[in-house]
Amino acid sequence: MRQSQLFTRTKKEPPRDEVSINARLLIQAGFIKKEMAGVFSFLPLGLRVLKKIENIIRKEMNLLGGQEILMPALHSKEPWLKTGRWETMTDLYKLKDSADREFALGGTHEEIVVPLVAEFLSSYKDLPFAVYQIQDKFRSELRAKSGLLRGREFFMKDMYSFHRSVADCESFYEKVALAYKRIFDQVGIGRMTFMTFASGGLFSKYSHEFQTITPYGEDTIYLGEAKGLAVNREVNTPDVLKDIGLDEEKLVEKKAIEVGNIFQLKVRFTEAFDVKIKDETGKLEPVYMGCYGLGLPRIMGTVVEVLSDEHGMAWPKNIAPYAVHLIALQKEVLPEAESFYEELNKSGIEVLFDDRGEKSPGEKLVESDLFGLPIRLVISERNKGKIEIKIRTEKESRLLEKNEAINFIKNYVE
Amino acid sequence: MRQSQLFTRTKKEPPRDEVSINARLLIQAGFIKKEMAGVFSFLPLGLRVLKKIENIIRKEMNLLGGQEILMPALHSKEPWLKTGRWETMTDLYKLKDSADREFALGGTHEEIVVPLVAEFLSSYKDLPFAVYQIQDKFRSELRAKSGLLRGREFFMKDMYSFHRSVADCESFYEKVALAYKRIFDQVGIGRMTFMTFASGGLFSKYSHEFQTITPYGEDTIYLGEAKGLAVNREVNTPDVLKDIGLDEEKLVEKKAIEVGNIFQLKVRFTEAFDVKIKDETGKLEPVYMGCYGLGLPRIMGTVVEVLSDEHGMAWPKNIAPYAVHLIALQKEVLPEAESFYEELNKSGIEVLFDDRGEKSPGEKLVESDLFGLPIRLVISERNKGKIEIKIRTEKESRLLEKNEAINFIKNYVE
Repeated sequence: MRQSQLFTRTKKEPPRDEVSINARLLIQAGFIKKEMAGVFSFLPLGLRVLKKIENIIRKEMNLLGGQEILMPALHSKEPWLKTGRWETMTDLYKLKDSADREFALGGTHEEIVVPLVAEFLSSYKDLPFAVYQIQDKFRSELRAKSGLLRGREFFMKDMYSFHRSVADCESFYEKVALAYKRIFDQVGIGRMTFMTFASGGLFSKYSHEFQTITPYGEDTIYLGEAKGLAVNREVNTPDVLKDIGLDEEKLVEKKAIEVGNIFQLKVRFTEAFDVKIKDETGKLEPVYMGCYGLGLPRIMGTVVEVLSDEHGMAWPKNIAPYAVHLIALQKEVLPEAESFYEELNKSGIEVLFDDRGEKSPGEKLVESDLFGLPIRLVISERNKGKIEIKIRTEKESRLLEKNEAINFIKNYVE
Repeated sequence: MRQSQLFTRTKKEPPRDEVSINARLLIQAGFIKKEMAGVFSFLPLGLRVLKKIENIIRKEMNLLGGQEILMPALHSKEPWLKTGRWETMTDLYKLKDSADREFALGGTHEEIVVPLVAEFLSSYKDLPFAVYQIQDKFRSELRAKSGLLRGREFFMKDMYSFHRSVADCESFYEKVALAYKRIFDQVGIGRMTFMTFASGGLFSKYSHEFQTITPYGEDTIYLGEAKGLAVNREVNTPDVLKDIGLDEEKLVEKKAIEVGNIFQLKVRFTEAFDVKIKDETGKLEPVYMGCYGLGLPRIMGTVVEVLSDEHGMAWPKNIAPYAVHLIALQKEVLPEAESFYEELNKSGIEVLFDDRGEKSPGEKLVESDLFGLPIRLVISERNKGKIEIKIRTEKESRLLEKNEAINFIKNYVE
């Protein structure tokens, strides 16, 4: 992509009314636009990040055997009445049409997915299976101040699994936890993200959150570093710590962002819709259910929170909008840069090409650090045909011949 | 994909309360589920169709130089007040949160995209450009009876282009019309889809609809077959026909489904938001705008309407959920079918594999016709190691050796 063609522009300053790092940097760089608190537009560079996160998640969900579906955001009132959450879910957006029919905007989809799968479910032979979607969610957050971390509207991957027994559900639940670890590794926050015991609600002993440690997190967790496990505030009790084998003395209090959560719902929702299956003898038995959420913009915002530095963002290669930022530092080297841009494209490397004539070298380099693509390539008069390569997270750059540069990049992005 | 793993099931009968062909077949086959009138869940097979349509559209929009973005569905009231459409757009869903703030659910995005692009727009040098999104839309249709053809919630590709002059907008508009033709060709309805002159509203002479002819269409158009052009009812007047060179005598009245539309909005929305650019001398001048819509589920529903037969659906190869339906006709040939399934997968062919032991051969073949994948492969005891290949839209099948079959399929799907 040529930057001269990109309709977005970097702003000179981060927006004054934003306090969170992710909103400040992403808005300044033109990756997103804030439409209102908790509601964002994704602009070309930001959408590329979001889509890459989406594809990483989709691949892992497919590896778990999850079947992708897509449920609507507009829900009729009836299933929400059936589960009782029409009244109890305080962040549910409700609306009426001109015929005075009432609807909800889905902030979660148990009310939709359970009747949906029930249509196809009759015997124990139909179980287990899992369905998931990557879909737009709505939650009426009255305070939404944290950029992408807390949205009124946001894309979420929500998976729902269905089982014949608690044990089968638990075994799938553990596989999902491992898939989540792989996802956080791939998006670059695996090292600082910890599985965290949380309250299981009325039906299960525990649920689990995945918490990414950062001083700006809204949550507080208590981390047992040796075991790589944590508990959140609600379950930080001697009984729980004993139960899961964490030593109270060694727990460290940390601020963190919740980037995912998984629940065993047991029969909470299947019973609400009277979903049963026949066992081998024709007797009806209950269906057990798990649910597994990941907020895509929240992951994107978290990556910015934890991986940025004083110069700007620093995208991990798997989710960077482009692998390479190619910069023609002066007008004079534009033809040389043009032909190298073509060469990089031919090699299948994703390049953002700063081909703008009117920007100063200083502006270009500052903006490049802000964008934070993994590899910066500078073509400059003084480099005399060589390419200056700098990894965003390293201090030193190196000068390479063009063919060496291409090999270097290919090795790096692999 | 193994059918034994698929959580959906085909119903014995089409749903009784549906009148449209697309709803009857898609619901019966488990491609979609109706959540309420005009609101559907896409199940695994149906979602694959929708995603393929999405990718065809995305590719064509990128070829036009469109930059993909993603705007939210939840809109604040203010921009809708500014354009006056808060009151005049009768199918706009409106809602309030618990703090009594009012919101709209986007049924179109002029109110969002114009202020968005205005942030980055200052001079004539910034023009022209086009942005697009593939995004969930909401429209309060009180009567939504036509399956996927008329949704209260539906995915739409909406592109918006911005220009310095009417002429530049017109030239881009014509390119979009050609891209739309290519899209309809690729999804299999090009032959029966015609560019149709429609009213341009207050600001333009004409807009254009793309109308697909079918006896079950909700719209009426008047087709000049020789020219491959049509007019809709509103503009079927002697003056318009003369203007566009259609002979009234030769027009044929047809029922049709509107599968896309394009508008020149001129300055209708840019002026509402006071968006101007500086010309070469620093003087402010207006910005001209075009908008280009395509409803993805509507395209999917239309394909079902026009390409199905008495046995079921018949997907064009570019948007079929899978290219091939491989059927193990009897339990006895399951091992043979399993190994051929592996071989097909290795050859990169997309296969739905009916590996279910409990279904009768008759049930399997009837269901296969209903699903309508382009190629059916039957492995049966009586074929003695050969593969019976049938193209969904042809009457005769043929018997081929396995390696010949793979070559045949590869040639067919290319």
